[in-house]
Amino acid sequence: MRMFGFWRSAAAHRVRIGLNLKGLAYDETMIDLDSGQQASDAYREVNPGAVVPTLIEDDGASFHQSLAILEYLDETRPEPPLLPADPKGRARVRALALVWAADSHPFITPRVRSYLAEHFGVDEGGRTEWIRHWLSRGLEIAEARLSADTETARFCHGDQVTIADICLAVQAGSAKHFGVEMERFPTIGRIWRNCLEIEAFAAAQPLRQPGAPKPA
Amino acid sequence: MRMFGFWRSAAAHRVRIGLNLKGLAYDETMIDLDSGQQASDAYREVNPGAVVPTLIEDDGASFHQSLAILEYLDETRPEPPLLPADPKGRARVRALALVWAADSHPFITPRVRSYLAEHFGVDEGGRTEWIRHWLSRGLEIAEARLSADTETARFCHGDQVTIADICLAVQAGSAKHFGVEMERFPTIGRIWRNCLEIEAFAAAQPLRQPGAPKPA
Repeated sequence: MRMFGFWRSAAAHRVRIGLNLKGLAYDETMIDLDSGQQASDAYREVNPGAVVPTLIEDDGASFHQSLAILEYLDETRPEPPLLPADPKGRARVRALALVWAADSHPFITPRVRSYLAEHFGVDEGGRTEWIRHWLSRGLEIAEARLSADTETARFCHGDQVTIADICLAVQAGSAKHFGVEMERFPTIGRIWRNCLEIEAFAAAQPLRQPGAPKPA
Repeated sequence: MRMFGFWRSAAAHRVRIGLNLKGLAYDETMIDLDSGQQASDAYREVNPGAVVPTLIEDDGASFHQSLAILEYLDETRPEPPLLPADPKGRARVRALALVWAADSHPFITPRVRSYLAEHFGVDEGGRTEWIRHWLSRGLEIAEARLSADTETARFCHGDQVTIADICLAVQAGSAKHFGVEMERFPTIGRIWRNCLEIEAFAAAQPLRQPGAPKPA
């Protein structure tokens, strides 16, 4: 399979973890979000939304939106499963995933930061506070649920990795990168560490991708 | 079933359409987003995210996040189906739904508008432009896909209503409400009209709910 992504993109990071968990080989073409390559005519042919990731199946079929891609991978390559078997468990996992992937992460994307700077004159400090606010809010809501629910165990839902853990690891990584104090989220921190012990998660991390800044 | 919603909430609107399409009876308790009732301690007991909707099953089980709720309804009450049967079709429908429900609608919620006003001093005109921008962007991306894809027919994916149509109708309604020129989106406009001919969609509209402003 082929994927269009970017080392730093949270949505591409989610798909990378999913592909690794399923044991699927893929080539990732990096679309440079810093230089605006996602808005080029060539990339808009691939993805009219001008966002990453796009996943291209071996037969040429094209897929957008990280959560839709993860569900597709799970339906077509069922092992190991990324969702629980029971509808209530599936609803809980999907709701956790959406708290991060729909109600938190979209706010911090480059297109939003550009709008804040260009239309409202928000400086870098203001934009960083904005990012921390929405990342923290997603973590607060999830921490409240995860710490209260009996379904929470080694991972978000029992002892098997699900789509919720994929979103948790990506959100926690972004939050740490932007200076959110992770000590406020002990349940999330514990699950995150459990995720990073799995090679599929560790290998998918942004700083291990081509194009990422080298450690000083 | 019982639902906590609000007449104007786009996310509650989605669930209302889904319940109607499945022929499920429900009582909707309105949480007044205008007065901040969603942040009350009593409602946080129901939904720690302090957002609507929350769906309560007859057995007391509680569900959050509109897309997770729609998937749950579809898994537990399969007729009529709200997703295609094939994985590629399901991925296409879910991606369209997420363009609206994840990458567009969250930007216009009350919590975001409050942040813009309080932290960046954005006035009502600026907030309205912000809302129009993100609603339009979601419609532009979807219009490009829907007008190009051969799967688009009477509805977003063939001639059966799916979760994508639910999100389309809600997004189009919000966009019209906020003064977005809908003539730019002819495919979406056509599908929206087809949706509104269905009583499940018509009865779920915000202005038909208790608490909505009366027509002048």
